Amino acid sequence: MSAADSVADAITLDADDVLAAAGRIAPWVHRTPVLTSEALDDIAGCRLFFKCENLQKAGAFKSRGACNAVFALSDDAAARGVATHSSGNHGAALARAAKLRGIPAYIVVPENANAVKKAAISSYGAEIIECESTLEARESTLDRVLERTGATMVHPYDDDFVIAGQGTATLELMADAPDLDAVITPVGGGGLLAGSALIAAGKARVYAAEPSGADDAYRSFRSGERVTSHVPDTICDGLLTTVGERNFAIMQRDVEDVLLADDAAIVAAMKLIWTRLKIVTEPSSAVTLAALLGHPDRFAGKRVGLVLTGGNVDLSKLPFAS
Amino acid sequence: MSAADSVADAITLDADDVLAAAGRIAPWVHRTPVLTSEALDDIAGCRLFFKCENLQKAGAFKSRGACNAVFALSDDAAARGVATHSSGNHGAALARAAKLRGIPAYIVVPENANAVKKAAISSYGAEIIECESTLEARESTLDRVLERTGATMVHPYDDDFVIAGQGTATLELMADAPDLDAVITPVGGGGLLAGSALIAAGKARVYAAEPSGADDAYRSFRSGERVTSHVPDTICDGLLTTVGERNFAIMQRDVEDVLLADDAAIVAAMKLIWTRLKIVTEPSSAVTLAALLGHPDRFAGKRVGLVLTGGNVDLSKLPFAS
Repeated sequence: MSAADSVADAITLDADDVLAAAGRIAPWVHRTPVLTSEALDDIAGCRLFFKCENLQKAGAFKSRGACNAVFALSDDAAARGVATHSSGNHGAALARAAKLRGIPAYIVVPENANAVKKAAISSYGAEIIECESTLEARESTLDRVLERTGATMVHPYDDDFVIAGQGTATLELMADAPDLDAVITPVGGGGLLAGSALIAAGKARVYAAEPSGADDAYRSFRSGERVTSHVPDTICDGLLTTVGERNFAIMQRDVEDVLLADDAAIVAAMKLIWTRLKIVTEPSSAVTLAALLGHPDRFAGKRVGLVLTGGNVDLSKLPFAS
Repeated sequence: MSAADSVADAITLDADDVLAAAGRIAPWVHRTPVLTSEALDDIAGCRLFFKCENLQKAGAFKSRGACNAVFALSDDAAARGVATHSSGNHGAALARAAKLRGIPAYIVVPENANAVKKAAISSYGAEIIECESTLEARESTLDRVLERTGATMVHPYDDDFVIAGQGTATLELMADAPDLDAVITPVGGGGLLAGSALIAAGKARVYAAEPSGADDAYRSFRSGERVTSHVPDTICDGLLTTVGERNFAIMQRDVEDVLLADDAAIVAAMKLIWTRLKIVTEPSSAVTLAALLGHPDRFAGKRVGLVLTGGNVDLSKLPFAS
């Protein structure tokens, strides 16, 4: 058995799981619009279709995976609640999903997390537990919460229901923008990327976009060895984590390439999106457009879908210079 | 004949003109989405439906009136082009409509106009003619352009085709958010307000929202005498003009009330819209939400549509304090 076979064998998810997720979460999430801009098409030299998950419930695509995980629980498990660690958007999404099902949510949040995201979590009635910002501190704090409460852990990305749920964003994108040649999603932990790859594989090439200051997925993809710890330095606060195990397996099988963009290019792309599409998006979303603009030959003349993942920014700390 | 009768008699437009405009402009404008936010509903104490004309072609509802006016021209008249004076969004919209029909556009722009809006006009290939920012200077400069070119003047708001075109935004809003109790639009020159009143009258109450630093419509509405000159002082750069003649006549007949909001309330409402709806809107759009929040008793428990008119802002000069 080759290494590629063993990676593929470890994957238990397929496109049907994404379709099942779409049915399960439909009552609880927005079908977000797909926006286009002739001006941006001219700049990019290709046709762009932006899936606006910044307009999603709780402000990010994370509502999809969180709702899929919460509404798939048995009544018994649900009654004990759900818990996670999250730098923000997944925490808010899980808190909201739990509120919708009427069950408790416990969210472990790094103490340096974006204030807007923390406020969103609180607004859904979840219990916030702060910890240091290392992955180790998050995991040990979460372990204590799980022991105390009996809640079900819903991992932000390395979770089958979460991956399948996130994939529904790309399912809708491909339905509303037919015949795409390529789909680009940001990669942090890889939930959205893996779910998108499951549903798009064989129909459109799937690319990951990653900040060069948090390039673990890029290095993992090229070396074939998953990087499990790094010290990220990027404006993209939603993309600081390393790629998860099952996410990496799907990525190795179904993703075409990982494209990098530096923070200056990401801020420039973010400004283009705000100016031309008139929507509020996070730097973590703009990495898709930045990566595309940095690889013009790869996409010239193509139809390209980009998932804009979230819009939870602190308006008092915008990176636009005058 | 009473004064009210004579006002009504001067109005030649009705709802059918708005329906005709909808058919004429459909190929050239977006059907923009209507967004909702449970968080904003909780804050407002009513159900809010935001018609997102900031996502419209050329970034504002003005594309509707401009396309209606341009595509209603005879071929002969069209060949000589169109001209207008505009502080920005109407100019860009008319430039774009002219480009779509393949005819010249001449746009008179006050020298202190928003740089982003001027750049948008140029990007559509129109000829920009700068002048002083008074209404008198704009009109005399435009007269000279009309004499030189033989172009058809398309007034930014005091024009039947423009009024009917702008009304299509509210037509779509009422279709996508059924059974509205009220519709609120900003009022500057009154094109959108008058068009909205034509299509909504008898179905939903129509309110105008106006910055208290540019309260000519408020004073005109209350006194019954149209204020024709004033010195506005507001952040809402799209609402500096005084209400037009035919706009005022329709307003007197079909509008319920004019509600004021000061600039601080407008900026706070703008921040709510950016934070909760995740969209980039101008201060001139946010006046609708600011006016609603300032009159909670008027709208408690109602279903209220708000037209967010445009999203052309200079990102390097945002009014959000840290």
